[in-house]
Order: sequence, then C-alpha cells, then structure tokens
Amino acid sequence: MKRTVFLISDRTGITVETLVHTLLTQFDEDLFERVTLPFIDSLEKIHAAVQQINATALQDGVPPLVFSSLVDAGCREALRRSRGVLFDFFDDFIWRLEEVLGRKSAHAVGRSHGIGNVSAYDERVEAVNFALSYDDGAKLKNLGDADIVLLGVSRSGKTPTCLYLALQFGIRAANYPLTEEDFPRAGLPPALEEHRAILFGLSIAPERLQQIRQQRRPDSEYSSLAQCRREIQWAERLYAAQRLPFVNTTAMSIEEIAAAIMHRSGVKRRVF
Amino acid sequence: MKRTVFLISDRTGITVETLVHTLLTQFDEDLFERVTLPFIDSLEKIHAAVQQINATALQDGVPPLVFSSLVDAGCREALRRSRGVLFDFFDDFIWRLEEVLGRKSAHAVGRSHGIGNVSAYDERVEAVNFALSYDDGAKLKNLGDADIVLLGVSRSGKTPTCLYLALQFGIRAANYPLTEEDFPRAGLPPALEEHRAILFGLSIAPERLQQIRQQRRPDSEYSSLAQCRREIQWAERLYAAQRLPFVNTTAMSIEEIAAAIMHRSGVKRRVF
Repeated sequence: MKRTVFLISDRTGITVETLVHTLLTQFDEDLFERVTLPFIDSLEKIHAAVQQINATALQDGVPPLVFSSLVDAGCREALRRSRGVLFDFFDDFIWRLEEVLGRKSAHAVGRSHGIGNVSAYDERVEAVNFALSYDDGAKLKNLGDADIVLLGVSRSGKTPTCLYLALQFGIRAANYPLTEEDFPRAGLPPALEEHRAILFGLSIAPERLQQIRQQRRPDSEYSSLAQCRREIQWAERLYAAQRLPFVNTTAMSIEEIAAAIMHRSGVKRRVF
Repeated sequence: MKRTVFLISDRTGITVETLVHTLLTQFDEDLFERVTLPFIDSLEKIHAAVQQINATALQDGVPPLVFSSLVDAGCREALRRSRGVLFDFFDDFIWRLEEVLGRKSAHAVGRSHGIGNVSAYDERVEAVNFALSYDDGAKLKNLGDADIVLLGVSRSGKTPTCLYLALQFGIRAANYPLTEEDFPRAGLPPALEEHRAILFGLSIAPERLQQIRQQRRPDSEYSSLAQCRREIQWAERLYAAQRLPFVNTTAMSIEEIAAAIMHRSGVKRRVF
C-alpha cells in the first residue's frame, strides 16, 4: 500500500509541493500518495486537517508523513499533536533565525503574498501583457522597454519562457523569431541593433527541435532534421559573431531556462 | 549594514527563494541582502560558492546566513564547512525519511527536473499553446478539451491565471469573457452550455476592477465604477443562478487564484 503524504500550507501549497517532490524523488515516487491541503490559515482549519490526518493514520495502519510550511505558532503546535510523522520546514529555522538575528519574528501568516500585495499583482499582469504584445516579433515599437529580448528559431521555447519570466518574476520579456529571411544578412536584424544590450539567444539540439516541430507540422520541410540543423547552425553562428549570450535549452525545463537567463544576464526579478 | 543571505540550490533556486522569502518576511525585509547561487551541482561549484560565502563573512564582519536545498551529500558536507550560518532544508529530512521509510535515498541531483523530463516540458508548452489559442473566447471549437474554462468580466484576471495554470501545472485552461452582450440573456452563453462541468467563475471587488481598468483606459465608461459594479453584479448573479463555483480574486496573487481554483474544482496538476 502507498504511504499517504500530507502537504500542509497556510498559502497555496505550491512551494511545499515542489520541495516535497524534490525530497520524495530521492526515494521511489510510487511509494507515496500525496494530499495537499492549502490555505490552512486558522485554528479551525488546522483542526480539520489534524482530524483528516488521524483518520488516515487509522485507515492506513501506519502514520502518514506530514510536511508543513505553516508559519503561525498556534497552528504548528496543533499540527504537532497529530498522529502523523511531522516534517516542519520552518520550525527549527524560525527559532534559530531569531537567535542569530537577535530579534523576534512576527509569526504571522500571509505576509509574503496576497493581501496588501496589489502592486506585485499589477507588475505580473503588466509583464504578461507585455510578453503577449511583444511575442514573436509582433511589436517592435518601444522594444527598449523590455528587460530582456529573447531570440531563437521557431519552437526553441521563446514564448513559454517569456511568459514564465513575466508570471514568476514580473520581468518584461519580448521575443523575436529568427527566420530564414534573416539568414543571409551579415549582422543582427536591423530592428534589434539598438537593443543589443538586452538580447539573449536560445538554442536547442537539432534532433530535439525536430521532435518538437514534428508534433506541430509532421513530415514537412519545416520539421525536417536538415532544416532544423541549418537554422540552429545559423542561429548559433549569429550569437557567436554578435557576442550574444545564449543558452541551450535541450534538456532544460522552462523554469531552468528562465533561471539560467536571469543568472547569466543579470536581469533581476521585479516581484516576489 | 544589511545581513547577507545566500540561497544555494542545485537547480534553479526558485523554490528556495520562495521559502526564504516567506521566512524573512517574518522579520524586517530591509535587514537582508540576498544572493542566489543557482545550479550548484558539482564540487567545483560548491567550492567556489563556499569561497564567496567566506569572503562575504570577512567583508561583512558577521557570518552570512546560508540557506540550502542541495541534495548531494558531498556538496552539503562541503557547504557545512563554510563560515556562514547554515540552514539546510533537507539535511534532517532525508535522514528522518530514510529512517521512517526503512530505505535508502538516492542522494542524487536532478531527479526532479530537467534531463529526462522532456514530457513535462512538452506538456507545459502544449498547455501554454492551448491557453493562448483559447484566450478570451478566441476559440470555442473543441472547448471540451480544456481541463477548465474560466469565466469573468474584462480584467478580472482570466488570462494570467490560465497561463499560470499552464506553465506551473500543465493544466489546459481556456477562458471566456463575460461581456455586456451576454447580460440580458437568462442562462449561460450558448457556447458554454455543454461544458458546464468545467466552468469556473472569477469575480473581483468593483473598486479594485475599476482601479485596474483605469490603468488601461483612463476615465472611460469602461473604467467607471458604475460600469464595474453593473458587470460584477451581473456576473455573480450568473454564477449563482447556474450554480457555478467562483472565486473572488480581489486580494489574491495569481498563484493563489490558481491554487484556489484547483482546490475547489478538483482539477489536478499534470506535471511537476
């Protein structure tokens, strides 16, 4: 039987899901049955959660694993009395931080997101709108307003990466497609020349590009390996000749592509 | 002087940034100067990181705080010998999990993301393409392929939420704008009738909606408080009459809106 794993958060539970996923992939994933309980931000809700954990302990015959990123001291105390095996991401840390910093923490929920954080919401939405207007070279006017402009051939990952940068970090990311028309030209596409400082290239293994394009337009010239090779070779030559930073996205998740771009370009997140 | 805080990750560092942000907002944010070091996945890189931490300790005159989500045992051991005050998110947990589960972990980097995870990338990109094609009612054909269809008046947060669901969870989310044309009608817009089971409404306080619309089209009928009130009132009436679940997004971040929708609708993430 699978071991039940509870993920308890006073906010969305997304961070604790990611953490626990990283931890559990160190074991055999198929061992576990995950249950996320988000928005546990009152004693009433924590009591219901504890009941659910205890019922599961009885039903399973083994104590469930309970991962918590709760901040509130009362809720954490209540959770400690469940029949689960508790892994508390903050328990130690808050006390040690208070000690190291020589000051008390707030022990309060909801300081990092949500209420009061209207300006972060607005930044993200603005950045999404920016990414959508400046997608695939659709708009070039005021391109300099972008924090970064991604270049790459069709299906190299430009659009999802721009949207991720916008949603996660509030970064204004435009993208410009490198197409066969640009190939014969010696330098950068003219529209990009004056924005050189914010250009960043994407590359990808031709075999992987072919696989992606094949799903889009099977058995076309566009998705032939020869065409993919030609385009990638040309794109990488352009990046080298123009000394543009670039990243090879072949084996990366969107999150990793975004982080690599920020790391190398020095573009900073606008919001948390 | 600000206290330097290092965030060390063998992957993107995004999860550890979120966690540490939650922790540090329990204190005074302005106390800290954050430095994220992502992709620390070799002994060579960890040694460089330790040097940087030690140099900072000397320069600051106080030991920096070091938060780590490293998985590799050798790297964690190396980090333990830095001059920083170490907070290791996994240290305890991996040992305790091995004990509770009665089996050894892999202690290996990169199991949860990246290499080998091509299908998760494809799922996300497909979901983004889906969200873009089905944005704002642009496409209705095969709307039933959606995992969820968000309804709401203009600027209630539909597009960013759909894109977030796609990027973060690989969920296929469409959205349909409720406009004045739909107002007089008694029931659902006809195109939605057969997809009732996957509909989910967004609402928002009229004052907040006005503020958002005001940025878009200042001092128009569209952004008047009276108009916002009318539209929201009508939308909420529709949700109630049709017994559609809905969420009020007024004080929520995009992440919270997405999590609330998943929580209430039961729609599951397709990828980690």
